[in-house]
Amino acid sequence: MTTIHEQDELHDAGADASYSTARARSARLQAMIDDPAAPGRDRLRVLTGDRPTGPLHIGHLFATLKSRVAFQDKGIDTFVLVADYQVITDRDDVGDIEDHVLGQVADYLATGIDPQRSTIFAHSAVPALNQLMLPFLSLVTEAELHRNPTVKAELAATGDRALSGLLLTYPVHQAADILFCHGTIVPVGRDQLPHIEQTRVIARRFNARYAEVFTEPDALMTDAAMLPGLDGTKMSTSRGNGIALSMTADETAARIRRARTDAQRRITFDPVGRPEIASMLTMIGLFTDREPGQIADEIGDGGAASLKRLLTDVVNDGLAAHRRRRAALIAEPGHLRSVLQDGNSRANAIADATLRDVREAMGMTY
Amino acid sequence: MTTIHEQDELHDAGADASYSTARARSARLQAMIDDPAAPGRDRLRVLTGDRPTGPLHIGHLFATLKSRVAFQDKGIDTFVLVADYQVITDRDDVGDIEDHVLGQVADYLATGIDPQRSTIFAHSAVPALNQLMLPFLSLVTEAELHRNPTVKAELAATGDRALSGLLLTYPVHQAADILFCHGTIVPVGRDQLPHIEQTRVIARRFNARYAEVFTEPDALMTDAAMLPGLDGTKMSTSRGNGIALSMTADETAARIRRARTDAQRRITFDPVGRPEIASMLTMIGLFTDREPGQIADEIGDGGAASLKRLLTDVVNDGLAAHRRRRAALIAEPGHLRSVLQDGNSRANAIADATLRDVREAMGMTY
Repeated sequence: MTTIHEQDELHDAGADASYSTARARSARLQAMIDDPAAPGRDRLRVLTGDRPTGPLHIGHLFATLKSRVAFQDKGIDTFVLVADYQVITDRDDVGDIEDHVLGQVADYLATGIDPQRSTIFAHSAVPALNQLMLPFLSLVTEAELHRNPTVKAELAATGDRALSGLLLTYPVHQAADILFCHGTIVPVGRDQLPHIEQTRVIARRFNARYAEVFTEPDALMTDAAMLPGLDGTKMSTSRGNGIALSMTADETAARIRRARTDAQRRITFDPVGRPEIASMLTMIGLFTDREPGQIADEIGDGGAASLKRLLTDVVNDGLAAHRRRRAALIAEPGHLRSVLQDGNSRANAIADATLRDVREAMGMTY
Repeated sequence: MTTIHEQDELHDAGADASYSTARARSARLQAMIDDPAAPGRDRLRVLTGDRPTGPLHIGHLFATLKSRVAFQDKGIDTFVLVADYQVITDRDDVGDIEDHVLGQVADYLATGIDPQRSTIFAHSAVPALNQLMLPFLSLVTEAELHRNPTVKAELAATGDRALSGLLLTYPVHQAADILFCHGTIVPVGRDQLPHIEQTRVIARRFNARYAEVFTEPDALMTDAAMLPGLDGTKMSTSRGNGIALSMTADETAARIRRARTDAQRRITFDPVGRPEIASMLTMIGLFTDREPGQIADEIGDGGAASLKRLLTDVVNDGLAAHRRRRAALIAEPGHLRSVLQDGNSRANAIADATLRDVREAMGMTY
């Protein structure tokens, strides 16, 4: 018999082992993506996306947006999901959902996503995708839903709010997002590995119970460290610590000016001791492709004022072209809508075909 | 502070109060159905249906099938749902789902459901209906799902089997079944009242949060007592204690012949002490519209053999016309399919319109 403590260790060891396996698989996948002659490469399809809870910010730009353009430009079929139903998993209000969705599409296009080569779609516009929730829910147990660490974490983050049925089941909906289009690659951070594992389990169980319909997706583990906000905590538009891609140069300057720093004049890169300063140095580093420590040395005794000036210049220069393209796109909402509608149509055609296969496999073809 | 016991009493008192309210509403509704001149009567729509886990039996005939024909013949718009996804809430195998579904449709038509006037559809064929699961799941809490007594009861009935995500959330799916077509009347037994209440809560919350889209349905409480099987327990095809509408006269005779009775020669109507005998007398009573006690008196010392002979004759005579119609229908599966496909098309048109309204209310119209 093992004690609870020993069980925890076993669990951690299991998690570590599956982490190593996932990392190894991810490395093989990355090699395949990077080698245009790799066999089977034409069957790869990336599924990735964002929850339209607010404007995308520079954290998204470096963590995900640029990598999507890279997939696309390497010829990998890329599906970009506007996960609008995920907005209401943990809040009662959809917010300015239309603004956020169209803004998101504008940022995708401004970053270089080409809607001719990549598919941008909103899952609320794809009924056959959502129908997959039903058979998939029958393949998971309530206990499995509870074990999902993201569900646990999101629940903790929302405080005393009761767990909604949609938050509890959203890993199953995410499985539908991935499996409806036979997505084989899902770029994720380490914390999202359990979601991919849940999706693999659902695919496996469906195939075993009915017929071989789904391909198990693989996680492509992103090495991009999370870019913290100006205050050193997680960047989030609603916390006012982020720099949205949609901000003007003046808004950006004002937000950086107002950011708190410490009283120490000399600038050093110390993420633990001086998170706000470190975060600003990291941002400059990302935009200029340099080491934050080196930037700190150069500023030296210039103090927070110099740091903020540099940051403002670097961000506004770095985003200028994106913002010009974005503003032109936002001025034509009809075009943004038609891009989304085209993507939705493509997604619907695939979802309808997958649902046909699913109903056939289940014998529901009357 | 109340003790746990007092809380239980409070809970029961609350349940009784809401039962009385539901009964009163149900009586008003029945009066409206029965009065062709009642104002607002043309806005009524019945939603009812069956889970295609096996052939329908004589319990269904008296409890629900006949009443559906009565609704239809009184000019009430009637939707009859083949609840095929409900089959996999509590089992891993869909069984001979196609046979069960087509057989169910044949029984509907044989009983007198007219597909020109009533809509027969399978919810697996209506993606926009199923999509409603997503917004609806966001409107309920996990605690509410757990409190649902039918979920609890079904879980208890399935023994050690883990609770599936689909069983846990099926009251929400049932709400989608009712609300997608703006069903206003749902015929139910007392045990299903909590489902209707859950549906009303979902409609109310959606309307309050977004816009007035849904009508709260009312339960129409059926007085038909549950018809027990030949062994006195719940009639169920899988337990072999029921008489399926699809059986031949010979199969019916054989099943009744094999049914256990007690050793007492004199036939009396005693549902508690002699459940098997009482059940057979009840069946004869339903088919002949007579009192079971009176039938018992007439058989008297004729014993179980006489009782079984009478039951066999009465059932086979009573079902003869239904079975002839059913056999003719089953011989033309193409026709049954086209009836279902017509109903599915009608249901899809309504579901698409409702989903459009829902997406508009939620601001998801990009």
